[in-house]
Amino acid sequence: MDNERLNKQLAFILELDKEKNILRQTHLTNHGRREDDAEHAWHMAIMAYLLQEYSNEPVDIAHVMIMCLLHDVVEIDAGDTYAYDEEGKKTQHEREERAADRIYGMLPEDQKIPLRTLFEEFEANKTPEAKFAHAMDNLQPLLLNDSNGGGDWKEHHVSYNTVMQRQGKTKEGSEVLFELIKAKMDKHAGEGNLIDDRDKKDQ
Amino acid sequence: MDNERLNKQLAFILELDKEKNILRQTHLTNHGRREDDAEHAWHMAIMAYLLQEYSNEPVDIAHVMIMCLLHDVVEIDAGDTYAYDEEGKKTQHEREERAADRIYGMLPEDQKIPLRTLFEEFEANKTPEAKFAHAMDNLQPLLLNDSNGGGDWKEHHVSYNTVMQRQGKTKEGSEVLFELIKAKMDKHAGEGNLIDDRDKKDQ
Repeated sequence: MDNERLNKQLAFILELDKEKNILRQTHLTNHGRREDDAEHAWHMAIMAYLLQEYSNEPVDIAHVMIMCLLHDVVEIDAGDTYAYDEEGKKTQHEREERAADRIYGMLPEDQKIPLRTLFEEFEANKTPEAKFAHAMDNLQPLLLNDSNGGGDWKEHHVSYNTVMQRQGKTKEGSEVLFELIKAKMDKHAGEGNLIDDRDKKDQ
Repeated sequence: MDNERLNKQLAFILELDKEKNILRQTHLTNHGRREDDAEHAWHMAIMAYLLQEYSNEPVDIAHVMIMCLLHDVVEIDAGDTYAYDEEGKKTQHEREERAADRIYGMLPEDQKIPLRTLFEEFEANKTPEAKFAHAMDNLQPLLLNDSNGGGDWKEHHVSYNTVMQRQGKTKEGSEVLFELIKAKMDKHAGEGNLIDDRDKKDQ
C-alpha cells in the first residue's frame, strides 16, 4: 500500500473540514443561524441530483455533484465573498486562484490536476455541467431566503436588478428554474423585501 | 411546466434544510463545535469520490455519492442515534422507517420510490456501493476524532472492541481503509483515549 499517497489524500480531506467554519450571508430556514459552506455545497449537490430534469442540456450528474461539493474549497483561504460585495469581488479571482494552487496542491498529482481543472471549469461557466452547477449555486440560497421572507436581501439592502444580474447565470443552466426564481423575485419586490428598481432595468 | 411536480421537489429540498440542525457527537477538527448531519454527509460524499480507488469492489460513484448525501435524511424525524447508544438503537429501525415514509413521501412518485430504495439499499449493506458508503460513514468521524486526540471516545468512555464491532463494516467496503483505521485505533488504545479491552476480544 502506498502510504504517502493515502496520507496526502487524508490531509486534503482533513483540510476540507475548515469549510464548516466559513459562514455565508444566507440564513437557514425558520430564521435560523447563518449557513456554512459545507452545508451549502451539500444542499446544492442534492438539488442538482433531484432537479437534473430541468437542466437546459443533458448533464453528467456525477460531474455536477462533485463540482457542487467542491466549488467553495478556495474559500478556506480566500474567505466567502458575498454576491453583492463589489469591493471584495475586485480581488476575489486572484485570492481564489492562489487558494486553489495551495489546497489542490495537497493531493497526489493525478487527483490534483483534474480537480483543479474542475474548479476552472466551474469558474469559466461554459459546459452544461458548470452552468447547471451555477444554477444550483444561485437557487439554493434563494430558496432559503424566500422561506425567510427575503430577510437576507432586506439585511443587505439588495435591489431587484442586482439580484437579476446574478440570476442571469441561472437561465443559462435552467430556463425552468430561472422562471421560478423570477416569479419569487417579483413577489419579493412587490412586498418591499427587495429594493424595487425594475423600472430602471434598461438604463 | 408541471408546477405541482416542481413544488413537491422544492418542498422536499427545503425539508432537508433541517439536517443542518441535527448535531452529531463528533467534533470538528481543532477541537471545534459538534458537527451536523449535513456537514457529515458532505464530507462523506467527497471522501467517497477521492478514495474510490480503495473500494474492495468497483462502484458506481454517482450512486455512492447520492447515497452518502441522503443517508441521514431520516434523522430529521428520528434524530441522531449515537453509534454506541445501545438503548437508542433498540427503537432506531422503527423510528427511521416511519421517517423515511413521511419524508420521501413528499417527492413525486418517480423520485420517491428510487430514493426510498436507495435508503433501504444503504441499510441492507449488501451492494458494493452500500458497503463503500458505510466505510465512509465510519471513516469520516474517525478522522475528525483522531485529529482531536480521540476526544469523542474519551468523552463517551468508549472501548476498543465496541469501536471495532462497528468498524467491521468498514472492512467489507475497503480492506485498505480498515487497516488504516485499525492502526489509528491501536495507537489510541495505547494512549488511553480508547478503553483498552483488546485482550478480551475473543470472549
